[in-house]
Amino acid sequence: MGLRTGEQYVEGIRNRKYVKVYVMGKPVNDAMASPFLKPSVLAFKATFDAAFQEDTKKLARAYSPYINEEVNRFNHIHQGPEDLVAKVKLLRRLSHKVGACFQRCVGWDALNTLYIITSKIAEREGKGVYRDRFINYLKYVQKNDLALAGAMTDVKGVRTLRPSEQPNPDAYVRVVEERDDGIVVRGAKANITGVAVVDEVIVMPTRAMTEKDTRYAISFAIPLDTPGVTVVVGRQLNDARRLEGGEIDGLPYMFNHEGLVIFNDVFVPWDRVFLYLDWAWAGALVEVFSAYHRQGYAGCKSGLGDVIIGTTYDLARQLGIQDRPHVQSKLTEMVFLNETMYSAGLTASWEGIKLLSDGGWWVNPMYANVTKHLVTRFPYEIARLAHDIAGGLLGTAPSEFDLKNPELRPLIEKYLQGVPEFTAEDRLRMLRLLENVSISAGYLIESIHGAGSPEAQRISMARLYDFQLAENIAKNLARIRVNIRLPEKVEPHRRSDVEG
Amino acid sequence: MGLRTGEQYVEGIRNRKYVKVYVMGKPVNDAMASPFLKPSVLAFKATFDAAFQEDTKKLARAYSPYINEEVNRFNHIHQGPEDLVAKVKLLRRLSHKVGACFQRCVGWDALNTLYIITSKIAEREGKGVYRDRFINYLKYVQKNDLALAGAMTDVKGVRTLRPSEQPNPDAYVRVVEERDDGIVVRGAKANITGVAVVDEVIVMPTRAMTEKDTRYAISFAIPLDTPGVTVVVGRQLNDARRLEGGEIDGLPYMFNHEGLVIFNDVFVPWDRVFLYLDWAWAGALVEVFSAYHRQGYAGCKSGLGDVIIGTTYDLARQLGIQDRPHVQSKLTEMVFLNETMYSAGLTASWEGIKLLSDGGWWVNPMYANVTKHLVTRFPYEIARLAHDIAGGLLGTAPSEFDLKNPELRPLIEKYLQGVPEFTAEDRLRMLRLLENVSISAGYLIESIHGAGSPEAQRISMARLYDFQLAENIAKNLARIRVNIRLPEKVEPHRRSDVEG
Amino acid sequence: MGLRTGEQYVEGIRNRKYVKVYVMGKPVNDAMASPFLKPSVLAFKATFDAAFQEDTKKLARAYSPYINEEVNRFNHIHQGPEDLVAKVKLLRRLSHKVGACFQRCVGWDALNTLYIITSKIAEREGKGVYRDRFINYLKYVQKNDLALAGAMTDVKGVRTLRPSEQPNPDAYVRVVEERDDGIVVRGAKANITGVAVVDEVIVMPTRAMTEKDTRYAISFAIPLDTPGVTVVVGRQLNDARRLEGGEIDGLPYMFNHEGLVIFNDVFVPWDRVFLYLDWAWAGALVEVFSAYHRQGYAGCKSGLGDVIIGTTYDLARQLGIQDRPHVQSKLTEMVFLNETMYSAGLTASWEGIKLLSDGGWWVNPMYANVTKHLVTRFPYEIARLAHDIAGGLLGTAPSEFDLKNPELRPLIEKYLQGVPEFTAEDRLRMLRLLENVSISAGYLIESIHGAGSPEAQRISMARLYDFQLAENIAKNLARIRVNIRLPEKVEPHRRSDVEG
Amino acid sequence: MGLRTGEQYVEGIRNRKYVKVYVMGKPVNDAMASPFLKPSVLAFKATFDAAFQEDTKKLARAYSPYINEEVNRFNHIHQGPEDLVAKVKLLRRLSHKVGACFQRCVGWDALNTLYIITSKIAEREGKGVYRDRFINYLKYVQKNDLALAGAMTDVKGVRTLRPSEQPNPDAYVRVVEERDDGIVVRGAKANITGVAVVDEVIVMPTRAMTEKDTRYAISFAIPLDTPGVTVVVGRQLNDARRLEGGEIDGLPYMFNHEGLVIFNDVFVPWDRVFLYLDWAWAGALVEVFSAYHRQGYAGCKSGLGDVIIGTTYDLARQLGIQDRPHVQSKLTEMVFLNETMYSAGLTASWEGIKLLSDGGWWVNPMYANVTKHLVTRFPYEIARLAHDIAGGLLGTAPSEFDLKNPELRPLIEKYLQGVPEFTAEDRLRMLRLLENVSISAGYLIESIHGAGSPEAQRISMARLYDFQLAENIAKNLARIRVNIRLPEKVEPHRRSDVEG
Repeated sequence: MGLRTGEQYVEGIRNRKYVKVYVMGKPVNDAMASPFLKPSVLAFKATFDAAFQEDTKKLARAYSPYINEEVNRFNHIHQGPEDLVAKVKLLRRLSHKVGACFQRCVGWDALNTLYIITSKIAEREGKGVYRDRFINYLKYVQKNDLALAGAMTDVKGVRTLRPSEQPNPDAYVRVVEERDDGIVVRGAKANITGVAVVDEVIVMPTRAMTEKDTRYAISFAIPLDTPGVTVVVGRQLNDARRLEGGEIDGLPYMFNHEGLVIFNDVFVPWDRVFLYLDWAWAGALVEVFSAYHRQGYAGCKSGLGDVIIGTTYDLARQLGIQDRPHVQSKLTEMVFLNETMYSAGLTASWEGIKLLSDGGWWVNPMYANVTKHLVTRFPYEIARLAHDIAGGLLGTAPSEFDLKNPELRPLIEKYLQGVPEFTAEDRLRMLRLLENVSISAGYLIESIHGAGSPEAQRISMARLYDFQLAENIAKNLARIRVNIRLPEKVEPHRRSDVEG
Repeated sequence: MGLRTGEQYVEGIRNRKYVKVYVMGKPVNDAMASPFLKPSVLAFKATFDAAFQEDTKKLARAYSPYINEEVNRFNHIHQGPEDLVAKVKLLRRLSHKVGACFQRCVGWDALNTLYIITSKIAEREGKGVYRDRFINYLKYVQKNDLALAGAMTDVKGVRTLRPSEQPNPDAYVRVVEERDDGIVVRGAKANITGVAVVDEVIVMPTRAMTEKDTRYAISFAIPLDTPGVTVVVGRQLNDARRLEGGEIDGLPYMFNHEGLVIFNDVFVPWDRVFLYLDWAWAGALVEVFSAYHRQGYAGCKSGLGDVIIGTTYDLARQLGIQDRPHVQSKLTEMVFLNETMYSAGLTASWEGIKLLSDGGWWVNPMYANVTKHLVTRFPYEIARLAHDIAGGLLGTAPSEFDLKNPELRPLIEKYLQGVPEFTAEDRLRMLRLLENVSISAGYLIESIHGAGSPEAQRISMARLYDFQLAENIAKNLARIRVNIRLPEKVEPHRRSDVEG
Repeated sequence: MGLRTGEQYVEGIRNRKYVKVYVMGKPVNDAMASPFLKPSVLAFKATFDAAFQEDTKKLARAYSPYINEEVNRFNHIHQGPEDLVAKVKLLRRLSHKVGACFQRCVGWDALNTLYIITSKIAEREGKGVYRDRFINYLKYVQKNDLALAGAMTDVKGVRTLRPSEQPNPDAYVRVVEERDDGIVVRGAKANITGVAVVDEVIVMPTRAMTEKDTRYAISFAIPLDTPGVTVVVGRQLNDARRLEGGEIDGLPYMFNHEGLVIFNDVFVPWDRVFLYLDWAWAGALVEVFSAYHRQGYAGCKSGLGDVIIGTTYDLARQLGIQDRPHVQSKLTEMVFLNETMYSAGLTASWEGIKLLSDGGWWVNPMYANVTKHLVTRFPYEIARLAHDIAGGLLGTAPSEFDLKNPELRPLIEKYLQGVPEFTAEDRLRMLRLLENVSISAGYLIESIHGAGSPEAQRISMARLYDFQLAENIAKNLARIRVNIRLPEKVEPHRRSDVEG
Repeated sequence: MGLRTGEQYVEGIRNRKYVKVYVMGKPVNDAMASPFLKPSVLAFKATFDAAFQEDTKKLARAYSPYINEEVNRFNHIHQGPEDLVAKVKLLRRLSHKVGACFQRCVGWDALNTLYIITSKIAEREGKGVYRDRFINYLKYVQKNDLALAGAMTDVKGVRTLRPSEQPNPDAYVRVVEERDDGIVVRGAKANITGVAVVDEVIVMPTRAMTEKDTRYAISFAIPLDTPGVTVVVGRQLNDARRLEGGEIDGLPYMFNHEGLVIFNDVFVPWDRVFLYLDWAWAGALVEVFSAYHRQGYAGCKSGLGDVIIGTTYDLARQLGIQDRPHVQSKLTEMVFLNETMYSAGLTASWEGIKLLSDGGWWVNPMYANVTKHLVTRFPYEIARLAHDIAGGLLGTAPSEFDLKNPELRPLIEKYLQGVPEFTAEDRLRMLRLLENVSISAGYLIESIHGAGSPEAQRISMARLYDFQLAENIAKNLARIRVNIRLPEKVEPHRRSDVEG
C-alpha cells in the first residue's frame, strides 16, 4: 500500500489494542473523543491528507527504493539533496494548513538516523545485523504508512552526572534484562512529541556514552500499545480552553502535544532492537539525529512565521494602519527574520553530505545547527513585533462567550469593530489565532529546546568550525608566517565525527 | 481614616450596590466568589495590606497635606523627587509579594495627572473650578482609601481618523447630553486594568484633540456601580486553568485582569467632572499621564523580573547546573537587563520636574519614555533566557492532576526529580510559576502596550530631544561655524509641551 | 586567450594611455608606484592569479559558451545555480587570500545584469540591438580578460527629487548630446569600487525612471582612459598609514579603494551603448543588478569574517585565554553570525531563477536581499565581539616604529609578550590586522551601503513577500473564511517585476 | 590657588624637567609641538578652561573641605550624591566641547579611590599612615590643580596566571627594593589614558592579590618626569592623518591618546606610597576604582553620542531626508540608546553609597556596572545607525586636499553638494567628524575595555545580585515554602565586599 489517507490513520489509532495514556490525571482511551488530544490527531492526520491534496501531493509523496512504491514522505529515506530540500519545503507548507506542529518529524528523522547508523556499523565494523533488522522494519513502516514518534530525551536526573553515575539508575532508559527472544527496558523519555496518537515509537539514546554506560546504549522500536508503556500527556499554555466547548478562544482544532513516556519493564523482541550495548555509536547517533531535526525547524517555524505575519497583517488592516511606516517596517522585519531561518535550512539541505558509499544523505551539520540556533532566538522577536502591531487588545479581548451572550453581542460588535469592512468577530478570531500561535509553548519554548537547547548547537558549531585553519588564514595575511598552505575547501569547517 | 486594611477593601467591593460585570459571557456579582476574578481581588488587596506589613509599610504610606494624615501611597500626590523614587521602589517590592500586576497604579497616576492639569488650568487660565472639584474628590478618595481604576484608552475604531471623523461616533467616549446637574456620557474604554474590582473609575481622554473633537474632551470620576456602566472582563493566557479547581497549574491566587468598560448613557454630576469641552488641554493631560505611567513600569516589571530570575535560578539548582558558565552568563544577562529597566525609572524620578508654582512634581519625561521603551523589549529577552535555562519540560510538564493520581504520583516523583534535595513537586511548582509569569499577557503583551505602545514612546523621545542643539554641538566640532553658543544645560532636551 | 595572469593585468593597467586619477589632491599616473593605490592593484591582481593557483583554479575558471573557452569566472555569465553558488564560494575563498575587497564583483555583476536586460528587451520588445552590442562587448571582455569596474550610484543631489527635478541637472549622469557616431554624457558616479585600477568601466542607471527622466536612462561601457573621465580616489580609515613606509601598522599590501568618477562631456560610441532613453527598463536593470550584488556579500564578508575569527582566536591564544568559557562562547557567536550570512547567500544561489528562455540565471531576489540585510548588521556585532576578546591593547598598541627603535624594542618585547610561544611582534601584527580589517570602511560602512543601503533591501523584501497570501493562510486557520484556496507554491513570495 | 587656567596647564607640562615620551619610535619633548600629541593637550586643557567658562563653570568647580577653597571638580573628593551626579553631567557637557576623551577622569577616580581605601584601612585597622600621606598629597594636588593620570592595567603576560606565577616576574608592577627613604618599583602599565601630557601619575594594583603576590600590592604617585619612567604613546585609528598638515580629514585639534608606561626601577619616596604590601586591600581598591570609573562612562559616551546624533542629523538635512520615516526612526533609536546609558549612570550616582563614617561617597556598584555594560554594546549600535543615515560617502569621500586642488574644487563642489543650503565642504567636514568620532578607538574599542572589559562587569553584577533572595521570593509565590521572610530592602542586591 504505502500511502494511507488521514481517515485510515485515525481509524488505525482507534484500533490500538490497549494504550495507557493519561491526560490531566485521567486515562484517555479514544484520543479523538478527548478535546485535549483531538487537535493532535487532526494535526497528525493532515500529514496523511497532504499526500492526497492537489496543492501538496507532489511534495508529500516520494518514491521508496526499499518497497518500490510511493510512500508518504514522512516515512521516506532521503535519496539526495533534493529530498532534504523537499523536507523543509513540505514542512513550511504543512504549517500553513495546520498552524501547529504536526508531530511527525521526529519519527521521520529517527528513521533516517537509524538508516545511517545501522549502515555505518555495517560498513565500518562488518556487523550487519542492525541494518538488516532496520531495513525490515523500514519496509514494514513504509508499507503500512505508520505514524511514528521518536523518543530521545531522557529525564536525565542530575544533569552533571553520566547515566551510570545517577542516584536514580533509571534516569536514562536502560536494559534491565536480556532474554533469548529480546530485552527488557526501563526508564522514561520526556518531551515526546505527539506520542499519544502514534502507532509506534522509536527509542534512541540521548547522549554520547562511555563504556560504563553500556546498558544505556540502546535503540529500538515498539508499538505504543506494548504492555508496560505509560504516557502522561503534558500541559501547554492555554490548554484548558480546549475543554470549554468553545471554538474560538482555544482554537480546539489545532494543537500538538508532548508526553512523558514511561517504560516500566517493557519487553522488546530482538528484531526491533537496532543498537544494543554498542556504546561507542551512541554519540554518532545523537549527532546524526540532531542535525536532521535541527534542519527541519527551518520549515515548520517559518511556516508558523507566515501564519503570524499573515495574522498581524490582517489585524493591521482591521485597524486601518497597514500603510503606516512603522507598521510596514515591523512587518518587513518579521519577513526578514522568518526568511533568514528558512534560508539557513535550505542551505543545510542543498549542501547536504553523503555519508554512505551507496547514499545516506545527511544534512550539512554546520548549517543545520545555524538553522536551529536562529530558531532559538528569532521567534521571540517575531512574536514581539506581532504583538506590537496587534495592539493591547491581544491581551484583554473578551471571550467568545461574551460574543455569544445576546445582551453583550451588540455592544461588542459596536465597540470592537475597527475598519467597517471587518466585523468584531473577525477581530476576535484573529486575535485568538495570534495569541494561541505566537505565545504557544510550540512557537516559543519548543523553538528553544526542540532538537537540543541553544548550548547544544553552540557546542556543535564550535566543533565544526576549524579555528586553526582560520588562524592560518590570519597568519598569512599578518605576514607572520607567509604562505602557510591552505586547503582547497572554501569553508573552514572540520569534518564531523560522523563523516570521520 | 486614610488607611484601609486589605480586609476592609474586600468588604468594600462586596458592598458595591450593583455592578454589572461579565466574565466569559456570564454576570458575576461577587468577585471573591469568582475563581476568575478572585486573584485580582487578592492582588489589589495586597496594596492595602502593604501599608500594615513591617517590610513595606514605610514605603506604602505617605503623609498627605490635603487631609493632614497618612494615606496609602497609591492615593498620594507626589510632593518631590523622593516620592517619585518611592513609587518605583514600592512597585518593585510589591511585585515580589504578588507576582502579578496589582492594578492600582493607573488610578494613582490618574490622580496625579488631574492634580497637575486642573492646577495648570487654574494657574494659566484662572479657571479654578476643575481644581476645586478635584481637590474635594481627592480628599474623599484619600479619606476613604478608595480603590481606583483609571480609564484612558478608547476603543478607537478606525485608527487613522480623529474622534469626530469616525464612522462610529461613539468610538471615543463623548458627552451626549448636558444637564443642569451634570452630563451624560457614552462610549467605551478598553484594556482597563483591574476595573471589575475597584470602587471608582477615573475617565480621561486618550489623545490630543482639535476643536472639532470638543465633545470628546472630558474627564470625570464615577463609582463603578453607577447605572449604565457595563464591564466585560477580558481573557488572558492560561485563564481557564483557574477554573479547574487546582492550585498549581494555574496559580489561581495570583493574577490581574483587564476589562472593556462600556458607558451606556451614564450620568455624571458636575462635581465629578474635571475637564469639560476644554479640548486644548486633552493633549497635555495625556502627556502628563503617560509619563507618570511609563515611569512606573520600572518598578513592577523589574519586580517580576526578580521573580523570573529567582525561579530560573531555583530550576537551575534543581537540575544541578547553576554553576555552568553558560547558565551563569544567562542569569547575569537577565539581571543586567532587569536592572537597566529599573535604573531608567529611578532616573526618571530623581530627575523629576516641578510643574506648578507650589509643587506638582512630574517625572522627567525623557527618562520615563526611555524606561517604558526598554520595557517593550527586554521582558521578551528575559523570558527567552529563562526558558532556555528552565529546560524543555517547561512546555511539556504533566498536570498537577497527574501528580495527584495515586498511580502516577510515584512515577512522576521518580522521573521528574532532578537533584535529590528537591522533589518533583518542587519542580512542577516552579515550572508553573515560570510559565504563568514569564509567558503571561501581563509580562509580555502588556509590557509592549501598557501606557502606550512603542511608537508612542518613540514619538515622545524624538520630540523631547533637541536635534538642532545637537547639530550645533556638531557644527562647533566640525569647525563649520566656530563658537556657536551652547546653552548651559547638559542634556540636549527640549522642554515638553507641559512645561512650556 | 581568455585568461590573463596577475602580472599581465598589472602590465595592462600600466599601459593605459592617459588616466586622470587623483589621490589626496595629486595626480597619480602609475598606480603600482602609489603607496595609496598599490594595495588595490594587488587585490585586483589576486583575482587573476586565482585562476592559476592550485587551491582556487577550479573555482576561478568557468567555460564560456560565448567564446568557447575557459574564462576567468569574474567575467563569466552564470549558466545555472551551480555558477551562482560558485560565485559565493569563490568570493569567500579569495577573501582569505586578500583580506580585503578585491573589487572585481561590480563589473562582473554589471555584465550579468546587462546580459539579462538586453536579452529581455530583445525577447519582449523584439529590439535586439542592445543585446547584439552587448554580446560583442562581452566577447571582447572575455577574450582579453579585462578588469572592469561597474558604476551605478549617482551623486544624487537632493535625495527627495527625481533626476529631472534636481537643481543641479547633472546630479545624475545624462546624455547631453546625440551624435551620429555615439553620445556625449555628463555627470558623476560616486563610491565606485576599484575604479582607478581597471581597464574599463560599465555605467548603469541608479534608479527607476519616469518618462521625464528619459535622458538619464543610459548604460554604456568605456575604457578608463577615455578623454573627459576624471577619478578622485576617496579616503578610507587609516589610509595615511600606508604612506608612512612601514609594513605592519597600515598593512600596505592589502586594501581596496573607491572613487568618484566624473564624466565631463565624455563621448561614447554607439557600439558601447547598451541602454538609451528606454527609461522604462531602468528600474528592472537596477533590480537585477542589486540582487546579484547583494548575493555576493555572502561570500566576501563571510571570508573577512573568517579572517577576523582567525585573528581573534590567535590573539586569545597569545593571552592564554582561548579555553575560557566566555571566550569560547564569543568565538562561537562570531562563527554563528558569519555562517548565517553565508548560508543566506547560498540559498539565494541554489534557489536561483531562470529569467530567459535560453538561460539567464538570476539569484533568488528574496534571499539575495535577506543576505545583504544580514550583512548590514552582523559585521558590527562580529567586530564588537572580536574587539572584546582582543583586549584594550587593540586601541593603544605602540607603533611598529617603536618596535624598530633599538632602545624600545627590548622593552616592548618584554612587556607586550603574552604566552611565551608567541612574540610581542606576533601580537602587534595580529592586533594591526584586526584593527585594519574589522574597523575598516570595507567591513563596516560598506557592509551597510554596498549594493544599496538597508532601506533598499527592506523595500525589496516587503515587495517580494505576498502579505495577502499570508493573510489568506491566517484566515483559513482562524476559520474566518474556511478553505480559501492556497497555491501550490510553498514560500508566500510574489514574482519580482523582472520575472513579470 | 586651587584653579589653573588652561594656559597655565599647558605652561606647566612644558616646564616638566625631563619626560621620556616616544611617539612612533621617536622621542617627543614638547607635546604641544607634536601634531600627534597636541590634540591631547587641547583636550586636557579644556577641563581647565571649563572652570572659567560661563556655560560650564558651575559644574566644573567644587568646594574642597580639605583646602577650604574652590577646586577644579576633576580633583574633587565627592561629598554626596549630588557630586556624583555632577560628575556625570560635567562629562556629558565637556564631550560636547571636546568631541573626544579629555583624559582627566582616571586620575580623578584614582583620587577618590585612594581616599576611600586609605580611610577604610585607617577605620578598620587603625593604620592611619596611608590616609595621612594621601590627604597631604590630595591637598598638594588640589592647591596646584595638577593634571593627573591614573595607571591601573598591568601588561599581565599570561592571563591565566597570578602575578607571582608569571614567567616574566615584571608582568605586573612590583617592588624590587625597599630603602629607608622609599621603594624602587619595576614593571609596566598599559592603556594609560593621557599619560604623556600630565603632571603626575597615580599607580594602583590591577587585581585582587593573594599573600604570594604581596610585592605586587602597591599604590603610589609620582611626577611624570621621575627618572626611570618611559612612555610609549600608542597608535589610534586614523592617527597618521594628524601628521598630514590638513585640518579636516584628521580633525587634528581633537583626540586623546593612551600610552604604555614603563617603570624601569623607579624610586618612590615614602610620602608618595599609599599602599604597600597590604595585599588584602588590593581587591577592594580595584572594586572601588572600577565602579567609579564605570559610572563616568555614562557622561562622556552619551556626550559623544550627542555629537554623533547631531552630526547624523545634519547630514540627513544635507541630503534632504531628515523627515523620512526610517531616518526619524533611526535617529530616535540613537537617542533612546544614548539616554539609556546616561540614565543608568545617573542612577549609579543618585543611589550612591556612603562608605565611611564621615563621608566617602561611592557610586552604587550595581548601576555603575550596568552603565558600563551598556556602554560595551550600545556605541556599536549607535555607530551603525549613524553610518546607515550618513550614506556610503562616509567611506569614500575625497580628501580635503582634493578640495584644495583648484582644478578639482569646482567639480567636488558641484557633485558633492546635496541640498543647496549646504556646501560640499560642509558635507566633507561633517563626514570626517562622523568618521573620526564614531569609528574611533575611543568610541568603539575603549567603550568595551575602559574600566574593565565586559566580563568584568558581568562578574560584578552576578556577585552583587542576591540570587538566593530572588529564589526565596519565587518560593513564596510558588507556595513551596509559604511565607519565607523577605528583608525590607527592595532591590535583591548583596552588599559589595567594600561595604562589608
